[in-house]
Amino acid sequence: MLEQVLGRVEYNQPAALERLSAFLRIPSVSADPTYAAHCREAAEWVAQELRACDMDVDVHVTPAPGHPIILAHSGAAGPNAPHVLFYGHYDVQPPDPLELWTTPPFEPTIRDGRLYARGASDDKGQVMCFIEALRAWKEAGQKLPVNVTVLIEGEEEHSSTSLYPFLEQQRATLSKADIAVVSDTSMWNAGQPAITYGLRGLVYFDVQLHGPGRDLHSGVYGGTIANPATELMLILGQLFDRNHRVTLPGFYDQVPEPDASEKAAWAKLGFDELAYARSIGLEAVHGEAGYSTLERRWARPSCDINGLYGGYMGKGSKTVIPSFAGAKVSFRVAPYQDPEQIASGFRAFLEERTPPGCRWVIEYFGGSPAVMVPTDSPWLRQAARAVAIGCGKEPVLVREGATIPVVASFKNDLDLNTLLIGFGLNDDNLHSPNEKFELANFRMGCLTHAALLHTLAEKS
Amino acid sequence: MLEQVLGRVEYNQPAALERLSAFLRIPSVSADPTYAAHCREAAEWVAQELRACDMDVDVHVTPAPGHPIILAHSGAAGPNAPHVLFYGHYDVQPPDPLELWTTPPFEPTIRDGRLYARGASDDKGQVMCFIEALRAWKEAGQKLPVNVTVLIEGEEEHSSTSLYPFLEQQRATLSKADIAVVSDTSMWNAGQPAITYGLRGLVYFDVQLHGPGRDLHSGVYGGTIANPATELMLILGQLFDRNHRVTLPGFYDQVPEPDASEKAAWAKLGFDELAYARSIGLEAVHGEAGYSTLERRWARPSCDINGLYGGYMGKGSKTVIPSFAGAKVSFRVAPYQDPEQIASGFRAFLEERTPPGCRWVIEYFGGSPAVMVPTDSPWLRQAARAVAIGCGKEPVLVREGATIPVVASFKNDLDLNTLLIGFGLNDDNLHSPNEKFELANFRMGCLTHAALLHTLAEKS
Repeated sequence: MLEQVLGRVEYNQPAALERLSAFLRIPSVSADPTYAAHCREAAEWVAQELRACDMDVDVHVTPAPGHPIILAHSGAAGPNAPHVLFYGHYDVQPPDPLELWTTPPFEPTIRDGRLYARGASDDKGQVMCFIEALRAWKEAGQKLPVNVTVLIEGEEEHSSTSLYPFLEQQRATLSKADIAVVSDTSMWNAGQPAITYGLRGLVYFDVQLHGPGRDLHSGVYGGTIANPATELMLILGQLFDRNHRVTLPGFYDQVPEPDASEKAAWAKLGFDELAYARSIGLEAVHGEAGYSTLERRWARPSCDINGLYGGYMGKGSKTVIPSFAGAKVSFRVAPYQDPEQIASGFRAFLEERTPPGCRWVIEYFGGSPAVMVPTDSPWLRQAARAVAIGCGKEPVLVREGATIPVVASFKNDLDLNTLLIGFGLNDDNLHSPNEKFELANFRMGCLTHAALLHTLAEKS
Repeated sequence: MLEQVLGRVEYNQPAALERLSAFLRIPSVSADPTYAAHCREAAEWVAQELRACDMDVDVHVTPAPGHPIILAHSGAAGPNAPHVLFYGHYDVQPPDPLELWTTPPFEPTIRDGRLYARGASDDKGQVMCFIEALRAWKEAGQKLPVNVTVLIEGEEEHSSTSLYPFLEQQRATLSKADIAVVSDTSMWNAGQPAITYGLRGLVYFDVQLHGPGRDLHSGVYGGTIANPATELMLILGQLFDRNHRVTLPGFYDQVPEPDASEKAAWAKLGFDELAYARSIGLEAVHGEAGYSTLERRWARPSCDINGLYGGYMGKGSKTVIPSFAGAKVSFRVAPYQDPEQIASGFRAFLEERTPPGCRWVIEYFGGSPAVMVPTDSPWLRQAARAVAIGCGKEPVLVREGATIPVVASFKNDLDLNTLLIGFGLNDDNLHSPNEKFELANFRMGCLTHAALLHTLAEKS
């Protein structure tokens, strides 16, 4: 039975590539309102593809300026079969700077076995992997062995503003699923598939320190009043100790050490720290004392200044004391840390250090917790089987330093674990010019998802 | 004799105001090359005014993109009379933002006894004070009792790039002067004239810390490599200790405490720290522990971050690790500190703290030392007499926190002390919209300079 389906995936590849290309030609940039009609077009296009797979499809309109959310369902496997929720997004990042693209971002082009276009890997290519899997089951004349819900949103690159109210509204339906599948991550490398079982969370702030009512001459006033740029730096400079550990009280209290079996498994991955550093133009790694790079990236929380601004930012010199200065400050949240506790701890840290005469203007962009997927679950075992079938190689288990907020929401709001099975590569240029998806990975993705529908049905 | 001259100054005031207005209508913005012709026009205008005072005038063309320097001389007093060098500048700051001006910056307008225009106080109004003084002596039919050289440059607001080579080239001529007079400072307040006997110096840097070869995703890389924005903040955060003292080794070694008589004199000025803070929208002063605001401003060195930039500086959030981050860092240099020692100390401070994999790109905009004018000199006594005559009130002796580099150059390159006698007020909006000069101060300035030509002749 599965053989026939996999054969159909292979047979369909040329047509699947044409379908993906058609999808990629729709410039569904969610952040820019001038592309709103294209977002609707992309939503309708996806809905049509899902209908072609015999799914019941609803296209939900969201409040402006939101983009439609697609919810599709197939219950053909019957009440005793497992129920799988697939999640993906049809929106893409803005394509700027256009001049750095070798071929135009919305004219998909194949070069050297790679498909270049905005959204090729993030996430249209990966969405099409599981839609093509559903199609192959149908075209092979096979009934789907699991019940399937497909949730495709159009605001993932723009805060998923409409998604969370929608999840709340559809909770009764969605919480019937037994397991979620998100295909928006990467393989360990081109030859090594991976399943991701941990994601870090995120806490993000814009903090501005305001002082004098106007910019001042630094000769006349220098040394006599609190300079917001100087004070901001002095305060944020206290966020780390000499071991590059965050100094917020209790920050590490909930963070467990990676356990011995994890550390052993990660050691086997053969991660090359110097090659890693060199791939981004550095000659050394740097971080919290006492941990390896993979531990720092996957298991340890971190804090980054994502931006600094204030005062004179042009060429040359200007002797000004700025009336305010600001910083973007974010924390990557480790498993078991509470984002809201970090957020309130950071606010307190700032308030306790308010310089004489100054005041804070703090904007909080919200927090998302880390996620850990149980690695001993039967779902994960079955997913690993599917990956082995689809890729011809057993997957390694990895974590990811980045954040996929919807996965935390599935866990916390719907009590739903997620299988993170992705086919991107680190050099796919996500969010950058010349985004691409490897054709070999597209094929592995389609095969793996087709197999997954089979292996998940054999879960019990 | 002086009575007649002072009477002529008073008689000339309406015409003097028209002349100043004509000068202010010339938009001689030195920093913007599109105003270059207007700078030439202003130079020629000043030259013509000086010729009308029977001076020998040369307009020196400077290498592009420089603006002309005017050097005028009158040796009528004869070889035994003192020789005074007047310095000023005809260039002005850019007028932006235009929309904040009540009346256009180059259409001088009188409101409430104040003349509003770019350059009204800085420095065209103050230049015209001594040109009007020279004119009054001539029109009163009196021979100038001192020999006079007038030096007017057009790049003061733009680093005085052409001036220093010119001073070097004219050293033989200029060093014949016995004393310099610079009228580019302020009175203590509207009712209290002042002579300034100390200026702080300046050391100014742009420092950039460069790390990864491109901007990185802070989820994927956060905590594993040196983030230039974070590291810059951690490093600059070490520039101050808990007493708000600069931590560069030896930074304060050459800085003398204000002596007892100075402290007593400053105490008599009745400086109101809270009123000072409130005048700039603050409720408190702040600075180096153990010193008053006037001491911090006039006698102590300081360090300011004048600008911060790097990474994401827009609205909202972006999870980026920037490839570099930068800061404008300046020091106000106290008397006896060596600017080059501070500069090399700061460079060493940065280099010693270079984070793994990172490198500095440091731009040094040069250093200027502090200046102290002897307060017990006969020149200063005679200047105080002139101020008392011109303003009807004895001047107080003050220092200034800001820097006038030419004064240090006169001292160090020409061995020439400077009398700093200015008629601005703190609320003149220098470098800001709605710059103004009080008509009463213009009159006091003209009278004081007319008297000064007399009192300096009586020096011996």
